[in-house]
This record gives sequence, structure tokens and C-alpha cells, in this order.
Amino acid sequence: MSSGAGGLPALVKTRRALGLVGEEARVRGWVYRKRDLGGKIFVVVRDSEGVMQVVVDRATAPPEAVRAAEAATIESAVEAWGRVEADPRAPGGAELRAEGFVLHSRAEDFPIKGGEGVDYLLDVRHLWIRSRRLTAVWRLRHVALHAMRRYLDENGWWEVSPPILTQSAVEGGATLFEVNFFGRKAYLSQSAQFYLEALIYSLERVWSLTTSFRAERSRTRRHLYEYWHLETEEAWARMRDSMRVAAELVAAAVRGVLEGASEELSLLGRSTEPLERAARPDYPSITYDEAVELLRRKGVSVEWGDDLGADEERVLTGYFDTPFFVTHFPKHLKSFYMKPDPGRPEVVLGFDLLAPEGYGEVIGGSEREDRYEALLARIREEGLNPDEYRWYLDLRRYGSVPHSGFGLGVDRLVMWIAGLDHIRDSLPFPRFRDRIYP
Amino acid sequence: MSSGAGGLPALVKTRRALGLVGEEARVRGWVYRKRDLGGKIFVVVRDSEGVMQVVVDRATAPPEAVRAAEAATIESAVEAWGRVEADPRAPGGAELRAEGFVLHSRAEDFPIKGGEGVDYLLDVRHLWIRSRRLTAVWRLRHVALHAMRRYLDENGWWEVSPPILTQSAVEGGATLFEVNFFGRKAYLSQSAQFYLEALIYSLERVWSLTTSFRAERSRTRRHLYEYWHLETEEAWARMRDSMRVAAELVAAAVRGVLEGASEELSLLGRSTEPLERAARPDYPSITYDEAVELLRRKGVSVEWGDDLGADEERVLTGYFDTPFFVTHFPKHLKSFYMKPDPGRPEVVLGFDLLAPEGYGEVIGGSEREDRYEALLARIREEGLNPDEYRWYLDLRRYGSVPHSGFGLGVDRLVMWIAGLDHIRDSLPFPRFRDRIYP
Repeated sequence: MSSGAGGLPALVKTRRALGLVGEEARVRGWVYRKRDLGGKIFVVVRDSEGVMQVVVDRATAPPEAVRAAEAATIESAVEAWGRVEADPRAPGGAELRAEGFVLHSRAEDFPIKGGEGVDYLLDVRHLWIRSRRLTAVWRLRHVALHAMRRYLDENGWWEVSPPILTQSAVEGGATLFEVNFFGRKAYLSQSAQFYLEALIYSLERVWSLTTSFRAERSRTRRHLYEYWHLETEEAWARMRDSMRVAAELVAAAVRGVLEGASEELSLLGRSTEPLERAARPDYPSITYDEAVELLRRKGVSVEWGDDLGADEERVLTGYFDTPFFVTHFPKHLKSFYMKPDPGRPEVVLGFDLLAPEGYGEVIGGSEREDRYEALLARIREEGLNPDEYRWYLDLRRYGSVPHSGFGLGVDRLVMWIAGLDHIRDSLPFPRFRDRIYP
Repeated sequence: MSSGAGGLPALVKTRRALGLVGEEARVRGWVYRKRDLGGKIFVVVRDSEGVMQVVVDRATAPPEAVRAAEAATIESAVEAWGRVEADPRAPGGAELRAEGFVLHSRAEDFPIKGGEGVDYLLDVRHLWIRSRRLTAVWRLRHVALHAMRRYLDENGWWEVSPPILTQSAVEGGATLFEVNFFGRKAYLSQSAQFYLEALIYSLERVWSLTTSFRAERSRTRRHLYEYWHLETEEAWARMRDSMRVAAELVAAAVRGVLEGASEELSLLGRSTEPLERAARPDYPSITYDEAVELLRRKGVSVEWGDDLGADEERVLTGYFDTPFFVTHFPKHLKSFYMKPDPGRPEVVLGFDLLAPEGYGEVIGGSEREDRYEALLARIREEGLNPDEYRWYLDLRRYGSVPHSGFGLGVDRLVMWIAGLDHIRDSLPFPRFRDRIYP
């Protein structure tokens, strides 16, 4: 037993304390549950790593500890110390027999008691985010981000800081958020792609993690208006090179979570089998043509040239039990900057990576059009104003090279890895059309 | 010598090729400099890690290689292979004697030739960012960010993803950017602080790296309208705890750069002495009162209660040769959420960390007011509407704990570490009042 300040046992996290059976420990956190059984008060304390049951025995605990435990309400901030004893009935198999109990601050009647509707819970999202379930998602998200960064670091990628305020519409004007920039119109970035492309002529392999913004017209369970976008861009890379990076990045996130967030997966009730299958980056790949064929086989009415929406993606995921690629989309379905397939110019060298189990697209990428005249022609063909893409066109005039890249929706990836029903729970403060508070 | 595809020597980065004297190598990149001396053409090739001189000898190189080298212009994309030989006149002390030279794409006349004014260079920022000097900053920035993340990872901090679109004005309304959010007013975040505060009740120690936005009225060499903000928030932490984290984080960045970006520092002409002094986190600390006294000693006319602006900060940095703290500012100079010093309520438990050498503030932080009534009174005292801070006030009603945190301006930190004259060069696409393109 190590001793902390003031002669009290050393302060440890609940997760560690559970392993100190037979020793003294001190824990600190918030009251998660409380039952007063007369002789004993059972207080489950929650901290950043888990929960631990504290038992305040009226027969043996000091009177001031008993009074503090009596006064403690749900979500009150408390601290307790004493001996840790094994008890199979306690969460985690051990409990702390309190020799001291301090009430740091007494919570008012906590408004979330269970059974509230989603609209109300979103109104008190600043309190809801404390739930054990959501906290497990935040920890899993941290672990996934950490694993992806480690992959990028170990493979020679440079992290860069692209702008959010921009005059460039990467994905077209319909979903742009407008900002009043001293009387001029500016927009919130939909993608850092153009800026990453500018940076490959010096750093070659670049990535960024930023918020991207899309004013989606539709309300779905997998769209956010503000989302976290991990984007890569690589000089000298063809579509297949970028697909390999995409698969390795997702597999790295999955392995990271399996290794570093197994308790969180368990708390979320997430089956690890689909994740174990996705831990190796050898994901299958089909073309858009093949996707159309597979959809028809399941009775989906789809013509070549039709866009594949959430419904079609869901059907396709029925064919695969790992993430999988769809490639070579019809040109008119994709953005002007995607390079046409030289052998078949009606399709582009673009790819999506879809998560299985009905989740669908988590990554979109492509080889970029690197020829000045061809890019200019595509901009005109789409009815866009070449003047607005002047600097982007410049990149093809001074040392153009083949290059490819992709954007990964971090929230989408977390949603699938954690097995969530709705993307709103993949991050603490989701933004939708009718939701900007808190 | 290892062999690459097609029987050519293995492709390596220039930095590695310089060490392969006596061996065959292949490099790829962009033409940085070119001189045609008749018998030989000297082409300096730039890639993501540095430069290397390629010599195309008209007497010995294949005719198609000579023709390609002749056609290559500045910033053309090229590839060359051959034997690496030591030559003290070449950059890096070695050069590649070309047996093959391929022109991947020929650049038009590159508009940056040296001597251009800053306004023009900012117009072609998408091309300027390739300069060896700016590329060295991007690499240094990557290394600094990496080192700070490693510090946070190793010390139990959880990375979280706070929102950018918000209705909360953390730092007051004057510098807010307004967004049209489906007919409602929303703002771009000035700080993630309030959201990080909400997250400490579950994760205890949280940090985020986001863009923050301030529509500054003044044009200075150290203000950006859009900047990268690394913020921390910690439950149970007092002001001094947070100051220790701030110092350790900055020292970690400095050590990371000294170890991992020494070539970049050298290329930037940055003296490492001030950085070596800052590599240990034992930074001195003075109070605001002492700062006023030190300013007066240098003849600055300042009254107790006056704000310390860039000019005053610059004078103060003359007293220190490492980063240093200023603490305990008059309450009216700081935001309403800072906790007053219990022993002297006219000052707050707030701190700034100032970089030496005239750079000034890189971090601002404080202990937060954790008492509901006191926070409400401060909001009213500042003439703010408590309704707009309803959810933030809630955090004091349900399990309030002492907590502290800070925000670090990543661009400011990079500016100081790299020894830059102007903050615009600390990131690729800076945003100012008159600058939103490219």
C-alpha cells in the first residue's frame, strides 16, 4: 500500500483499485448509483476509467463519512478511501469498504433518470455525455484516432493544417454553409482536398484531420452537418495505391480498438467478430458495374448510371462480411476532379470503401485529374466557373504528377466500429439541421 | 545496391540517396535549380525530404536523358537514376551521375523567381508553399504536433471532438464570425473550452485540437482569423496543476523539434540556444503585479489594471530567456469564467505563458469558476444574458469539481520555435481580413 497526501491511501482510478484486493485505496469521481439498505449505504462511484462500488457501513464507518454518504445524490462529486475486498456481487468483482467518505459537491436532482426520449436527451446533451455508454464511445474514438495517427506516422505521412474558411467549393454549391467574412462571402470547408493537393508538391504524402461541413437536405441516421474528416493525398500514387492506404488505415483503427478498447466494446455490447474479420486490410473490391449486377440479383431496380444511395449500399453490404471497395463509378455521378479511366472514359478512377453490416460508405477517394486541359474541360462540362478554380488549375501547370487521395468520415467509422444505431452518438455534440444547442 | 522495378535502381528519397556514395540510386521530385554548363547539365531535384544534385553529362548520358534534362524547367516533375558520387561542391556533399533522366511533366514558366513582394506571394500561396523554407516549417510543425500528442497520450489525456458551429460565445461577441444556419444565427467557435468542461465529468482529462476563429479588428504579425487551438481541461486541477501541464507540453514540443527537426531549424537559420533553454519545463512565473513593476522599471507607462498588449509583452520578454508565466490578472481584464483568487478577489486564478525573444503569449489558461451562484453573478456583472449560458451553468449544478485548463495557439508556438517574423508562415494557408484566397 502506497500512501498519498495527508496520510490517506494513494488516489487511484477505479479500474486500478478493483485489482488492489486486500489493500487500501482511495477513489474519486461521481455517484453513478446509490442504495441505502439501512445498515449499509452502497455508492457506485464513476470515474474516467470505470465504476467501483463503495460500501459505507453505518456500524463501522466514521459518523462524518456516513453523513456525507447519506447526503450524496446521483452525480454528486465524492471521494472515498478504505480497504478493497473481493465481492462477486459488486461490479468488477471488488468493492471498497469505506473508512472515509467526502462529499465534494452535492448534485441537484439529476434530470436524466432513464427512459427519457431522444429529443429531451439531446437538449441535455451536456449531461447525457456522462453516461457510461457514451463515455465508452468517447474512449473508443480516442483509441481509433490514436491508431490511425500511428499508422500514418509510421508510414511517412506529414500532418498538415489546411484552412476551414474558403472560397472554393470542393463538392459543389448546394450544401455549402455561408459565412459573412467582413462583407464578403466565404464558405465553410467541405473538404481539405484541394489544399492537400497543393501540398503534395513539397511534402508528397500529406494528411489532415479537420471538421468539414455539409448542409445536407436529408435527415438520416448517418449524416452530420459538421463532421470529422481525415483526408490523405499522395503524389505519384495511382487509385490502387490510395485504396491500399485506405484499407490499411481502417484495419489499423480496427486493430487498435480490438487491442485498446476491448472493455468499451464489451460495455457497448458490440460483437467483435466483424471487427476481427476487418483487422487485416485485404478487403475485396468490386466495380460499379458488378455492384449494379449484385443489386439486381437481390431484386433492386437499378439502371447503369443510377447513384447508389444508402438503401443500395445497405443491400450491397449483405454480400460481404468485411469492409469492401466499389470502384469505377460512372463519370457523371462523381466530382469533376476525378480522373477518367483511360481505357473506358465513361467511368472514373474513383472508389468508395463501405463498412459491412449495413453501415455503408466510410471513405471516398480517387485518382485526381492531373492534366490541365482535361481538368479545365471537366470544369466547363459541369457548368462551373473556371475562374473560381484558378489556383487549383495552376497545380497542373507547374510540375503536375499523378496523385490520389481519399477522405475518411471519422464519425462514420466510429459508428460502425462501435456498432451504433445513429451517427449522433459517435461524437459528443452532433450538429443537425435542428440541433445546434448545447 | 537494391534493384527496383524494370531493372532500375531502387527509388529512394534524396536525403537517403546522399548517403549512398558509390552505389546506384533513383530519385524523383521537382526541379529546384538548373544550370547548363555545356558539357554537363546540373539539375537540383527537390523532394519531400530535401534536395540532391543530378548531373547529366552530355558525353556519357543516353541521348534521351540529355534531351529530357534540356527540356526540364524549374518545378518540372522529373526522375533520375545513376551512381551517387561524393562531391563537396554539391548540396549535401554528393551528387547523382545520371544514367537515366525522365521528364514526367514540364512546368510552365514558374511565377516565383525570387524578389517578389509579399502581396503577390500570398496571391500565389498555392505555389509559394513549395519553397524550401516554408516546407521546412511544415515539417517542423508536424514534429511539434507529434511531440505534444505523445506527451498527452503518455499522461492519460483523452482526445475529444468538440463542435465548431455553436451558439455560445466563449470570449465575447465582438470577434465572432456569423454563420447562416438555416435561417438561424450560429457562430464559429472561438474556443472549445465550454465543451471540454462538459466532458471532464466523464473523462476527467481531455484535450482537443481544432480550428478557432476570431474576427480580430487589428492587423498584427501574430494574429490569424482562423487558428489552430490545442486546448486542455482537467477535473480536480488547480491553476498550478494546469500551469505545470502547459509548461510540460511546450517543453515536449521544443524537445521534439530539437530532436526531430534539427535540419529544418538549420535550414531556417534558427538558433537552437533559446530552444535548448526551453527544453526543461521549469519556466519562471511572475504575477501581474510584478509584471507592472517590471514594465515601469523599463520606463513603460502602465497603471495597475491596464491590459498588457503585444508591446508590453515584448518588453516583459526582455527579462526572461525562457518561456515564462504571468498570473493573477485583474478580474476585469479576463473572462467571466475565471475563478477569483479567494484571498484577493480582485484578481483571478488565470495565467498566460509568454514565449521569449519578443514573441509573447502562446498560452492562456485559468482555474474555472466552479460555484453556480458565483458564476451566475459574474455573467450578470458582465452584462451577459444568463439564458445563453444555461447549459454551461448546469455543469455547476450536477457534481461540480475544481477544474482548470488552457488553450495553446499552435501557430504562435510554431512561429516562436521556428523563429518566424510573421505568423502567416506558421501554416500553409493563413486567413486574414483581406486574405481568403487561395
